[in-house]
Amino acid sequence: MLQNALHQSKSYLKEIIQPGDVVVDATAGNGHDTLFLAKLVSESGRVFAFDIQTEAIQATQARLQQAGITNAELVLAGHERMAEFVPQNVRAVVFNLGYLPGADHSVTTESTKTIQAIEAALELLLPEGRIVVVIYHGHESGKIERAQLLEFVSGLSQDRFQVLHSAFLNQQNSPPELVVIEKKKSSS
Amino acid sequence: MLQNALHQSKSYLKEIIQPGDVVVDATAGNGHDTLFLAKLVSESGRVFAFDIQTEAIQATQARLQQAGITNAELVLAGHERMAEFVPQNVRAVVFNLGYLPGADHSVTTESTKTIQAIEAALELLLPEGRIVVVIYHGHESGKIERAQLLEFVSGLSQDRFQVLHSAFLNQQNSPPELVVIEKKKSSS
Repeated sequence: MLQNALHQSKSYLKEIIQPGDVVVDATAGNGHDTLFLAKLVSESGRVFAFDIQTEAIQATQARLQQAGITNAELVLAGHERMAEFVPQNVRAVVFNLGYLPGADHSVTTESTKTIQAIEAALELLLPEGRIVVVIYHGHESGKIERAQLLEFVSGLSQDRFQVLHSAFLNQQNSPPELVVIEKKKSSS
Repeated sequence: MLQNALHQSKSYLKEIIQPGDVVVDATAGNGHDTLFLAKLVSESGRVFAFDIQTEAIQATQARLQQAGITNAELVLAGHERMAEFVPQNVRAVVFNLGYLPGADHSVTTESTKTIQAIEAALELLLPEGRIVVVIYHGHESGKIERAQLLEFVSGLSQDRFQVLHSAFLNQQNSPPELVVIEKKKSSS
């Protein structure tokens, strides 16, 4: 079976993340990705995880504690403020856009702030580092966010970034889509 | 670096093709894919390669001979006639849509025949088999073919097929795009 966007996103992260890396989970949500990233960077690395919902930070904290993870820093703040908390030379940044799975669907990510956060992440990124964005767009605000995001990333400099978009075309239930941005090697 | 469509296409093929399989190169062109497929299926498998240009069949034949490949059948006929030559239970079918690289760019694939060929391929395919389509759309007729192809595959039954589309969004030189169609396991 072809991998869905979530599985694809993990493959794109595994390809580049090494023990010792600094990485960011821009949308901690229930902490699944934070845990996945913390394991990839190992104890010598560091994960910064952002969320604006207290319940998300708590759920993530509980999940990490249960797994014995101590190399993650959870930040109760919008991901657009990433540069205030995260040092330069980040290997990868993950966004799950849409909503906190299983939680209040009226609390969605906002596209203006999302784009600010991606702009911040692009500058923090190491050469050959990646931003991986999973887009849930089943609900109305998700469709708007998807359109604005695709427009924004389509305009990124081709001298500095590769932007890959993948989507399942023939499914009626709006399956999640994937955008991977890689900073070019010669870029700074 | 993120893999381009051509490299991605090879990854999607390698994931499923086994020694002994029957596979199809729907657009033999210069024979690069035919050779790649012949190696994957090994001597116990079989590759059928189609092209409407004599020079393509000759180039492919020369390439296979040089590599000592004897399990390929080269067919000088349009790929829309695939079902006349290829048995049922095919593991994978490859299309490179656009033109024969390095040859006369006015001889392009035609979208009506391409869609007929994909329809034929869908029926020949094993469950979990894949059709992998690389779309070169730098020239005008390629853009029309791309649009018609995407419309066609978007309409395929989601009960029978998964359809994944991937493209680089921020490049000005119309890099090739990829469509992967997988027949579902329970499908027939």
